[in-house]
Amino acid sequence: MKPTIVRTIPRAAAGAIRALGDLGVATVHEAQGRTGLMRPFMRPVYPAARVSGSAVTVSCAPGDNMMIHAAIEVCAPGDVLVVTTFSESTDGMFGDLLAVSCRAHGIVGLIIDAGVRDTADLTAMAFPVWSKAVSAQGTVKATPGWVNVPVVCAGAAVQPGDVIVGDADGVVVVPRLDADAVATAAQERLAKEEKTRARLKNGELGLDFYGLRQKLTDLGVRWVDSAE
Amino acid sequence: MKPTIVRTIPRAAAGAIRALGDLGVATVHEAQGRTGLMRPFMRPVYPAARVSGSAVTVSCAPGDNMMIHAAIEVCAPGDVLVVTTFSESTDGMFGDLLAVSCRAHGIVGLIIDAGVRDTADLTAMAFPVWSKAVSAQGTVKATPGWVNVPVVCAGAAVQPGDVIVGDADGVVVVPRLDADAVATAAQERLAKEEKTRARLKNGELGLDFYGLRQKLTDLGVRWVDSAE
Amino acid sequence: MKPTIVRTIPRAAAGAIRALGDLGVATVHEAQGRTGLMRPFMRPVYPAARVSGSAVTVSCAPGDNMMIHAAIEVCAPGDVLVVTTFSESTDGMFGDLLAVSCRAHGIVGLIIDAGVRDTADLTAMAFPVWSKAVSAQGTVKATPGWVNVPVVCAGAAVQPGDVIVGDADGVVVVPRLDADAVATAAQERLAKEEKTRARLKNGELGLDFYGLRQKLTDLGVRWVDSAE
Amino acid sequence: MKPTIVRTIPRAAAGAIRALGDLGVATVHEAQGRTGLMRPFMRPVYPAARVSGSAVTVSCAPGDNMMIHAAIEVCAPGDVLVVTTFSESTDGMFGDLLAVSCRAHGIVGLIIDAGVRDTADLTAMAFPVWSKAVSAQGTVKATPGWVNVPVVCAGAAVQPGDVIVGDADGVVVVPRLDADAVATAAQERLAKEEKTRARLKNGELGLDFYGLRQKLTDLGVRWVDSAE
Amino acid sequence: MKPTIVRTIPRAAAGAIRALGDLGVATVHEAQGRTGLMRPFMRPVYPAARVSGSAVTVSCAPGDNMMIHAAIEVCAPGDVLVVTTFSESTDGMFGDLLAVSCRAHGIVGLIIDAGVRDTADLTAMAFPVWSKAVSAQGTVKATPGWVNVPVVCAGAAVQPGDVIVGDADGVVVVPRLDADAVATAAQERLAKEEKTRARLKNGELGLDFYGLRQKLTDLGVRWVDSAE
Amino acid sequence: MKPTIVRTIPRAAAGAIRALGDLGVATVHEAQGRTGLMRPFMRPVYPAARVSGSAVTVSCAPGDNMMIHAAIEVCAPGDVLVVTTFSESTDGMFGDLLAVSCRAHGIVGLIIDAGVRDTADLTAMAFPVWSKAVSAQGTVKATPGWVNVPVVCAGAAVQPGDVIVGDADGVVVVPRLDADAVATAAQERLAKEEKTRARLKNGELGLDFYGLRQKLTDLGVRWVDSAE
Repeated sequence: MKPTIVRTIPRAAAGAIRALGDLGVATVHEAQGRTGLMRPFMRPVYPAARVSGSAVTVSCAPGDNMMIHAAIEVCAPGDVLVVTTFSESTDGMFGDLLAVSCRAHGIVGLIIDAGVRDTADLTAMAFPVWSKAVSAQGTVKATPGWVNVPVVCAGAAVQPGDVIVGDADGVVVVPRLDADAVATAAQERLAKEEKTRARLKNGELGLDFYGLRQKLTDLGVRWVDSAE
Repeated sequence: MKPTIVRTIPRAAAGAIRALGDLGVATVHEAQGRTGLMRPFMRPVYPAARVSGSAVTVSCAPGDNMMIHAAIEVCAPGDVLVVTTFSESTDGMFGDLLAVSCRAHGIVGLIIDAGVRDTADLTAMAFPVWSKAVSAQGTVKATPGWVNVPVVCAGAAVQPGDVIVGDADGVVVVPRLDADAVATAAQERLAKEEKTRARLKNGELGLDFYGLRQKLTDLGVRWVDSAE
Repeated sequence: MKPTIVRTIPRAAAGAIRALGDLGVATVHEAQGRTGLMRPFMRPVYPAARVSGSAVTVSCAPGDNMMIHAAIEVCAPGDVLVVTTFSESTDGMFGDLLAVSCRAHGIVGLIIDAGVRDTADLTAMAFPVWSKAVSAQGTVKATPGWVNVPVVCAGAAVQPGDVIVGDADGVVVVPRLDADAVATAAQERLAKEEKTRARLKNGELGLDFYGLRQKLTDLGVRWVDSAE
Repeated sequence: MKPTIVRTIPRAAAGAIRALGDLGVATVHEAQGRTGLMRPFMRPVYPAARVSGSAVTVSCAPGDNMMIHAAIEVCAPGDVLVVTTFSESTDGMFGDLLAVSCRAHGIVGLIIDAGVRDTADLTAMAFPVWSKAVSAQGTVKATPGWVNVPVVCAGAAVQPGDVIVGDADGVVVVPRLDADAVATAAQERLAKEEKTRARLKNGELGLDFYGLRQKLTDLGVRWVDSAE
Repeated sequence: MKPTIVRTIPRAAAGAIRALGDLGVATVHEAQGRTGLMRPFMRPVYPAARVSGSAVTVSCAPGDNMMIHAAIEVCAPGDVLVVTTFSESTDGMFGDLLAVSCRAHGIVGLIIDAGVRDTADLTAMAFPVWSKAVSAQGTVKATPGWVNVPVVCAGAAVQPGDVIVGDADGVVVVPRLDADAVATAAQERLAKEEKTRARLKNGELGLDFYGLRQKLTDLGVRWVDSAE
Repeated sequence: MKPTIVRTIPRAAAGAIRALGDLGVATVHEAQGRTGLMRPFMRPVYPAARVSGSAVTVSCAPGDNMMIHAAIEVCAPGDVLVVTTFSESTDGMFGDLLAVSCRAHGIVGLIIDAGVRDTADLTAMAFPVWSKAVSAQGTVKATPGWVNVPVVCAGAAVQPGDVIVGDADGVVVVPRLDADAVATAAQERLAKEEKTRARLKNGELGLDFYGLRQKLTDLGVRWVDSAE
């Protein structure tokens, strides 16, 4: 239970990480059985933000960003910082200086269940960040925490080395050992969706080709011509 | 009380619907006596989104979008889907596939007191959507609901066939039978506002031409030169 | 305790106000000891909004914007309206007409712990506004209030004449008499940050040059190579 | 659309109103197809509060209780006041004086999508109240509204004369014309639940007698002995 | 701006403090022009809690209760601790040990815009506490703050030595120098209310004796006999 | 990833479970390094509720309680149900019938990150429940889920078999393998607190015996006699 920084973590294969990022949050979330999604209050700092990478997890005291500094040292290029606090906070724990430091170490993005600041700079740098809040509220460096232990971030459990995917729809966590299987399942899903899209574009109804017309009847729904 | 899908609804005149859309949410809301506005948590998926059309109402189980599929079949070109859930939900009940299907059937927009996903696609398609949340959370198709019954959406009562107007300021509902009268009243209001705008631009004070100076005095407000 | 409108307020020097605006919210907030920040729910109507100016404070009944009209008369060019309500409200108390009037009188921005509307117009006019909500909900002009008394706005105490700084990170209040000292301290901070940024860009770690490595050790944090 | 006070409303039969009150919110809500429930933020001022009666609806400006005074005059003994505001408010619009007045006129309870005060007095009087908030915030009597028009209260549509049932579980609205049918259906449900309760008390599983064991298997759920 | 502990504060007269406590929150709030009320999320830990006393203000880092310890030393018998945090927090910063210490020093209650714990003990001790949350979340003693400076607590500005009144309806702040005048005005109000209560009990209508019937007519409200 | 019900789980020793329950949430949370606490929105249905037991975890679709029925079968006497939903819900997924069934199977309590109903019955039965909401909203039995897999409940990670402790201060999770050590550490803490309580009762200051006076000085805090 003592505050600890774990230096090395296992990571998924780079190919799977890249593939998951290309597939996007909604498709990946569906492909892994609708699990792993963070709460919808996690929003990107700029709309075009996209990321995929290996989670380096950070657990901080509220209003204290000391452990983010400690975490940067143990990151490898391609990692994503996943930051939580012991209790809820919206303080601006991360800004342009930390983003410059992250970029210098190859860190590709930040997921933080708290606040960030210097958002104009983060946008100008195109450093992708998902947070619960934008806040200039400054933080201290006073209380120890943890790096690379299992955390809960925005309602999702994250293990160090899990794959994080973020885009305009939010953030999803793929367990490291499932990364390949989920990427494959998601690609199949995408191909199938492409066919569905073509049929829907043609005016076919989901009601028909998902078999919902019969299902609704079986469930006792009735169709009437008008309200009277 | 049995789950029901109503196939045909009355609609307002196309001219009134178009006029209300051109007038915009704030003006229409004022013109009908400051009624009919949905709660301010309803936000457009992209800032330039604008819509006006006839409401096809949909009442779904939380986390279940089956009835949206059922609703598309009964829509006519120019309709707007107005979707609610039996209890509060932020799940992503609508995404790019459903938007493609909507567009194929002439549906011009979506108002949903829940979540949506694939927001980058919705923006690229310029399919206007107002929602309570953006969330990739997937949904099932398991529980029956209603199409084209009176609903409450984001705090506003909506009858099937009511006129829905949405823009950057939110969403307002105009009762179908009031559409013409409200459009006329709103146009008059707009003309009057144009004159007010010119006077304000010239430096005249609302304090004076709204008669507030006297009113404040009557209400006992005093003017003093400085705090002491 | 009687409703009162105070006509004249003291103001900080124009140079300090301008300097604080150039420095931005996060830097100014840090430079004055991490005080004076409004709650993070205060968001700009458009992302590029920036403002600095002298606070003219307005305390209104919820859903009633009469006192904003009264406040415009007592503003001087360069002032910022700071509007609160007696109890929480998200109503759209300010829109394009009031913005036109503000601009005619040289008012440079609005901070409102309530709602605004006509946001497309405000954006087109580039009139900077920070608010708790966007809402078309119309308001009345019925209940008296106060202009230029001390208020609490979005959790921050504001005195008439305090300097208000707003940007993408939120809104900060600088006590009028501290404006020069804070501007100076913030400029020093900025210069120091510039050096820090260069070192971080070079790959140096905050862990090292903030002395956190030793501190973490002193606090009992241990480094381990892997989770086992 | 002009502010209006409707003097007379239709009411359900006293027997049905009493029966629905005895059955309680959860049972009534189930018996009418899981519809009509107000949002769960509506809480009783004291835990033992229970009410059933005919809705007299009131639509007020936020922070303004003038229309509650107007509504009391048109109430009959056995009525329940159902109060909403044009936009969200938590102000204390109702306190012990209004409760004394209500009691003098035979009004049996209050449902208010806003705040109340003097809660110690309301409890001592055993006057049942469900509200969104407890707040001492005082209100004005300045802006007109409506009495006995259709309203939306805490997410539920209410027509004047609908039956309101409130208890520790919240508040449910029964459409006036359905009152008898719902009361009968609810009594049947209660009888059935009594049998279910006896079986569950004996250790039988809902899994078995609701037929869920087979359903789960059909839906692809698998049972395993342990996590490995 | 440097963290500071102020040892001595001015206080209102004991008689006025006692009188304000006897009058209660709603009456005091009305008597001082409907100002000074804290937000309604401030709730007593047990329903019968009542307090009045002189404010000793404390401004803490979120998740850090060190300054509460510092504040106890400078309190006099009859004081009320008023605790805020630099940014929003619900952590349990105060529990039974601190309550024991408070009682030993004659402190009569706690108002905290954060969380408390050991609520069963606080109730058993009858130590009155109003808080935003109940949370067992532990806190550190690491970051300096302020004692006896002006603070904003739950939306209300508090000066050291102001009179704090708390009961089931919430918490109100009376500026120290106004304590006598407000107590007198509140007593007059109470006497008047007593007469109003008697008339209302007799069935007289507020509509009549507040003159609202005429006012509603002047404002354009119409009475109709039924909805048709 | 397929929906699964795990029949058997490991459990902590009965003695440790009982001891942790006696110690209470705040003490246990502190003793395990301030970890494992659920969010403070989890509140007991009645104030005197207390529980400790082994977690049987349940993951349900929002608005669907089918998996709770499935979970009861695999519970042993002394277990506590820990229920979450795939996405946020306040629906009343648990009521008196399920409580009767739980009691018949020796289940000692319920922790649910959603809503419950029949709260008067639950209180009368003294069946301890912690929930996010009280809501009569009925649920379906349509969508499969999981029993006895790792879950996140109200922000805390829970493994099947972890020890759950609940009281008036909230809910804390103790990892199964840590149960003995945490119970021992908590008992030591309690003993120490007893001595602290005695000293505080005597008027000693935490400022002194926690060594905070020196620490504050070291951190640069200054004491002044009065505000000027």
